[in-house]
Amino acid sequence: MAQQLADRRDIDFVIWEQMNGEDLLTYELYRDFNKKTCDMIINEARNLAVKGLLPTLQEGDRQEVRFENGQVRVPDSFHRVHKLLLEGEWGSLAPPSEMGGQGVPGLVVSAASEYFMGGNWALYSYTTMGNGTADMIHKYGTEEQKKAYVENLVSGKWGGTMLLTEPEAGSDVGALTTSAVRNDDGTYSLTGNKIFITNGEHDLCENIIHPVLARIEGDPAGSKGISIFIVPKYLVNEDGSPGERNDIVCTGTEEKHGIHASATCSMAMGSKGKCVGYLLGEERKGMRIMFNMMNGARMATGLQGLAYASAAYMQAVNYARQRVQGRDMNDYFNHEAPSVPIINHPDVRRMLLWMKSYVDGMRSLFYYTASCRTKASLAKTEEEREFFDGLYDFLTPVIKDYLSVHGHEVCVQAIQVYGGAGYTKDYPVEQYARDCKIASIYEGTSGIQAMDMLGRKLGMKKGQVFGGLLGEMQKTVAEAKKNDELAGLAEKVEKAVNRLGETAMGLGQKAMSEEIKVAFAHSWLFLDVIGDVLLAWMLLWRAKTAAAKLTGKVRKKDQAFYQGQIKTAEFYVRTVLPLAMGKLESISDCSAAAIEIDDAGFGGL
Amino acid sequence: MAQQLADRRDIDFVIWEQMNGEDLLTYELYRDFNKKTCDMIINEARNLAVKGLLPTLQEGDRQEVRFENGQVRVPDSFHRVHKLLLEGEWGSLAPPSEMGGQGVPGLVVSAASEYFMGGNWALYSYTTMGNGTADMIHKYGTEEQKKAYVENLVSGKWGGTMLLTEPEAGSDVGALTTSAVRNDDGTYSLTGNKIFITNGEHDLCENIIHPVLARIEGDPAGSKGISIFIVPKYLVNEDGSPGERNDIVCTGTEEKHGIHASATCSMAMGSKGKCVGYLLGEERKGMRIMFNMMNGARMATGLQGLAYASAAYMQAVNYARQRVQGRDMNDYFNHEAPSVPIINHPDVRRMLLWMKSYVDGMRSLFYYTASCRTKASLAKTEEEREFFDGLYDFLTPVIKDYLSVHGHEVCVQAIQVYGGAGYTKDYPVEQYARDCKIASIYEGTSGIQAMDMLGRKLGMKKGQVFGGLLGEMQKTVAEAKKNDELAGLAEKVEKAVNRLGETAMGLGQKAMSEEIKVAFAHSWLFLDVIGDVLLAWMLLWRAKTAAAKLTGKVRKKDQAFYQGQIKTAEFYVRTVLPLAMGKLESISDCSAAAIEIDDAGFGGL
Repeated sequence: MAQQLADRRDIDFVIWEQMNGEDLLTYELYRDFNKKTCDMIINEARNLAVKGLLPTLQEGDRQEVRFENGQVRVPDSFHRVHKLLLEGEWGSLAPPSEMGGQGVPGLVVSAASEYFMGGNWALYSYTTMGNGTADMIHKYGTEEQKKAYVENLVSGKWGGTMLLTEPEAGSDVGALTTSAVRNDDGTYSLTGNKIFITNGEHDLCENIIHPVLARIEGDPAGSKGISIFIVPKYLVNEDGSPGERNDIVCTGTEEKHGIHASATCSMAMGSKGKCVGYLLGEERKGMRIMFNMMNGARMATGLQGLAYASAAYMQAVNYARQRVQGRDMNDYFNHEAPSVPIINHPDVRRMLLWMKSYVDGMRSLFYYTASCRTKASLAKTEEEREFFDGLYDFLTPVIKDYLSVHGHEVCVQAIQVYGGAGYTKDYPVEQYARDCKIASIYEGTSGIQAMDMLGRKLGMKKGQVFGGLLGEMQKTVAEAKKNDELAGLAEKVEKAVNRLGETAMGLGQKAMSEEIKVAFAHSWLFLDVIGDVLLAWMLLWRAKTAAAKLTGKVRKKDQAFYQGQIKTAEFYVRTVLPLAMGKLESISDCSAAAIEIDDAGFGGL
Repeated sequence: MAQQLADRRDIDFVIWEQMNGEDLLTYELYRDFNKKTCDMIINEARNLAVKGLLPTLQEGDRQEVRFENGQVRVPDSFHRVHKLLLEGEWGSLAPPSEMGGQGVPGLVVSAASEYFMGGNWALYSYTTMGNGTADMIHKYGTEEQKKAYVENLVSGKWGGTMLLTEPEAGSDVGALTTSAVRNDDGTYSLTGNKIFITNGEHDLCENIIHPVLARIEGDPAGSKGISIFIVPKYLVNEDGSPGERNDIVCTGTEEKHGIHASATCSMAMGSKGKCVGYLLGEERKGMRIMFNMMNGARMATGLQGLAYASAAYMQAVNYARQRVQGRDMNDYFNHEAPSVPIINHPDVRRMLLWMKSYVDGMRSLFYYTASCRTKASLAKTEEEREFFDGLYDFLTPVIKDYLSVHGHEVCVQAIQVYGGAGYTKDYPVEQYARDCKIASIYEGTSGIQAMDMLGRKLGMKKGQVFGGLLGEMQKTVAEAKKNDELAGLAEKVEKAVNRLGETAMGLGQKAMSEEIKVAFAHSWLFLDVIGDVLLAWMLLWRAKTAAAKLTGKVRKKDQAFYQGQIKTAEFYVRTVLPLAMGKLESISDCSAAAIEIDDAGFGGL
C-alpha cells in the first residue's frame, strides 16, 4: 500500500544504516531502548499521525482558529486527537525522565516528530511547545518554579509559548518596550504588548505558561537590558492547580497565508489589571536564557520544513503512479498506444527525483545534526563533546533555513506534479505549500540565520568548527572514491567541498573588513550553498552505504531501494550541484551592486 | 508618492528608450497614435487599476466566487468596476478596428494590461477573455458567425472562454471524449463534461460564448479527430439579442490555492436537453484553430506572472523604505545609534535587487516579444515578417513559463522582505504568491512548455530561428563591449550566450536520438536557462541604453534611475548568471538518472 507523510524504509535506512543508530543505543543512558522498541515507537507514531492527525489537516485549514472576546477556539476535530496525543505521551518523547519525559533517543524522536508534523503540525505543536518552556525552567528556574511548572508542561497538560516579538521589535529583539516593575513580594508587574505569539491562547489546555522578554524599570536599552519572566495564564495555587486569572490576554489572532489552525496571537499584559511575572534566572540575562530555547525551536522549525516536504513528496509520487495521462514518449507517434501513468514521463520523473533528492538529503542532514547533539551529551572526552557541540551549533542555522526554504520549494514542486488538480483544495499539496512558508520566517528569518552563520558560526573557534565539518565531508569522499561506481561523483563532491572552504575563507575575511556590508549582501547565498554542499555529502554518504549493501544478498525490494539511493545521489551531484558551484562562483565574485545602488535606484518613487 | 503595481518610469524606459517605441508609431497603422496619446492611455489605465481594481483585490480573495444552483456570483465589488472597465473600453484595447476594437499599439496594451492584471487579474479577465474567442471567430468563422459574436465579445458585453480540459484529458488534449452529432439543420448536438474552465459561468455578462473542443461522431481518435464548436450560453436571436438558454451548464466551481475570485468551472453539455454547437472552421481542424488562440493565451499568462511580480516588488520596496527596524550594520556595536529603515540592511537590499533584476528583465523580455509580433505585422518584406514571427513563436513558451515560475518566486521573496507581516493577510503579497502559482499550470504546464521548446521550437527552420535570436543577443553584447564600464559584464553575457548555443546543439541532437527520454528529462531546465540568458541580454541592453543617456545631461531623478539600471545589470550578471552557467553545465552533463531509476526506487511503496 502506498505510504503517506514519510517513507518508512528511508527513515530506517537513515537511522540504522547511514547513522549507525545502534551504536548510540549501547550507552547506559539508553538502557531501556533497543532497536525493536525504537521501531515500535516510530510505527506507533506513524500510525497515529496517519490515522489521527492527517484526517484533521484540511478541516483545520478550513475552520481556522476562531477568536471571540479574548478566547481562542481551535478547530473542533483537534480536541479528540489532542487527547490521544496526551494519553499516548507523544508530547514528552524527548525530555529526560528527571523532567517527567521519556528520554527517547534523538533519532527516534526525529522520526516520530516528522510523522506528527507532516500529519498536522498545528495540532501537534499544541502538544509539544511546552517542552521548550519546561526546558528553560528546568535549566534556569528555582526549585519552586521547577516544581510548579515543569511536569505539567512536559506532559502537555499545560501549554507553553515564547513572547519575544513586539510590533516595533521583530528581528531587532533588543528594541522591545515591555516593561517590568519589581513588586514588594519579589514578583514583577509586566506591561506591554506582544505579537505573532504561536499558541498564545487556545482552549486545549487548562493553563498556558508564557516566558516573556521584558526590561526591568531602569535597566539599560538594547539586548543587554532584557530579562525573562514566567507569566502564567492562571497563577498556580499552592497545591499546583491553576488559580487566579493573570492579566495576560489575547487581543486577536492573525489571518494568515497558511497554518490557519495555529493560533498566532497578539497578547496584552497589564492592560486592565495586574500582570504578575516571576523572574527566571538572573536579571538582564534574558537573551541568553531565551537563546537556549531558541536553538531547539530553530531545529524544530527546520524539521517542520522537512516534514511538509516529505509529505508533499509522498503525495506527489503516489499521484504520479496512479494518474494515467498521455502516451509513453517512445510511443509518441503511435496513436493506438495506451495512456500510461504520468510517472513514465521524463519531466515528471525529473520533478520527482529532484524532490526526492532534497527530501532524502534534508532528512539525513537533520538526523545527522540531531545525532551530533546526542553524541555531545554522551561524549567521553571534553574534546569530543566540544567537537559535536560545535557541529550542532554550526549546523543549526543551516537546518533552520535550508530545510524551510527548500522544503517550501519541494511543496511548490508537488503542486506542479499534480497540474491543475494540485492548485485545488481537493489535494493537500497546496496547503503544505502555504503552511510551509512560515518556516523561513518565524524563529528568525532567513536573513537572521544568514547573519548568524557569517557573523558568528563560521568564525567559531577561529574557524575550526567549520574546518572540522569539512574534514568529516572529506572522509566520506575518500571512502566513496574507493568504489568505482561512485568515484566520479565523489570527485565532484570533493571539488565542491574544497571550493566551499575557499569561498568561506574569502567571504569571512571580507566580513571583517571595511567591506562588511558587501560581504553580508552575500550572506544568505553563502548559508544556502553550505546547505547545498552538505546535501551532496549526505547523498554521497547514502549512496556509499547503499552500494556496500548491494555487494551482499538483498531482497528485490531492497535492491530497488538501494539502487534508488545511488541514482538519487547521481541526479543531485550531476544535475543540482552544478548550480551550487555557480553560487560559489557568484559569492567569490562578490559584486557590491546591492550595496552601491542608490536607494532611489530601486525605483517606485 | 510611492508607486503601486508597476514602476511607471520603468515602463516608459522600456517602451520609449529601450525598444524605441516611437519608430513603430511612424507606421500608417498607428496614425491615430503618438507618444502623447500613448502616455495618456497608460496613465489612465494605471489610474483605474490603482483606484478601481486594486481596492477589490483582497475582498475578491475573501468573498470568492459563489456557486449556487448552476449560477456563479462574482464578488459584490466587481460589478461596479467591471462597468467602469467596459465604459472605458479597456477590454478592447488590442483588437483592430475592423473587429470593433481600438487597435492600440502592442507595447501600450502590454503596459495597460500589466497595471490591470496587477490590480486585480481575476476581475480584469472577465473583461478581456472574450478577445481570444472573438479573434478565433474573426479568423475562422463564417460572415454570419462574425456578425453574431465578434463585436459583443470584443466590447466585453459578452464573455468568452475556452473549453479544452476534461477530467481524463488534461495535458493530453487528444484524449477528450466530448462528442458532437450532426443535426439536420447543420448545427451539432454536443455531449460531454469539461473541467477547469476559467469564467465558464458568472453574472457579469448577459451572454457567454464557449469555444468547445469535441469529436464529431465517427471521427478518428487522438488530436487529429478534434473539431471546434461555438457554443453560446444563450442562442443568439436574429436581431442579435440573447435568446433561448442552451444546455451548457456549470456544475460547480473549484476551491483553489489562489485566484479565488476567478470562476474555475466544471461544465456539462447536453446532460438534460440539447446543447447546440456551431462548427467553427473546418471539421477536424479544431486543434489548429485552438492553438491560434492558445499562443495569445500563453503570452497573457506570462504577463500575468510579470504583473504579480511587479506589484509584489513595488509593495516590498515601499515597505522596506518605511519599516524602521534595527541599526545600520556599520553601527552594529553602537547601541545609541538610531534604528533605520530596513532598506539599509544588506540582506534586504540583496532581496530587493534580486527581485528588481527579475521584474525589469521579465518586463523587457515581454515587451520585446510583443514588439516582435507588431514588427511581423508591419514587416515590409516576407523575410522580415518570417524573422519576427519566428522570434515570437520561439519566445512564447519562454514567456509563458519563465515569467510564471520566476514571477511566483518574486512574490514569495516579497513575503520574506516583510517578514512575519508578509505571512499575514494584512498585506497583499501573500495573495500575490497564491494567485501567481496558477500561471505555471494553466494554458499548458511548465512540462508542456518545455516539450514545446525542445521538441518543436528549437528545431524551427533547422535551428535558424534560435540562431537568429542568438545573433540579436550578440549584437547587444558587441555594442556593450564598446563601453568601458560595461565591457566586463558584456563578456560574461557573451560567454553565456555562446555556452547556451553549444548546449542547445548537444541537447537538440540527443532529443532526436535513442536517448530522447534522457534529453527530455532536461527539457525544463533547458527552457529555464534560455530565460536566464535572455534576461542577462535584456538587462545588459538596459544598462547600455542607460549608460548612453548618462553621457548627456540628466535630471537627478533620472540619474538614479539610469545608474540603477547599470547596477541591476551588474547584480544579475555577476550574482545570478553564474547559476545559469551551472544549469548549462548540468544540461551538458545530461545525467540519465531520472530515466534509469527504477519506478520502485522513488520509494513510498
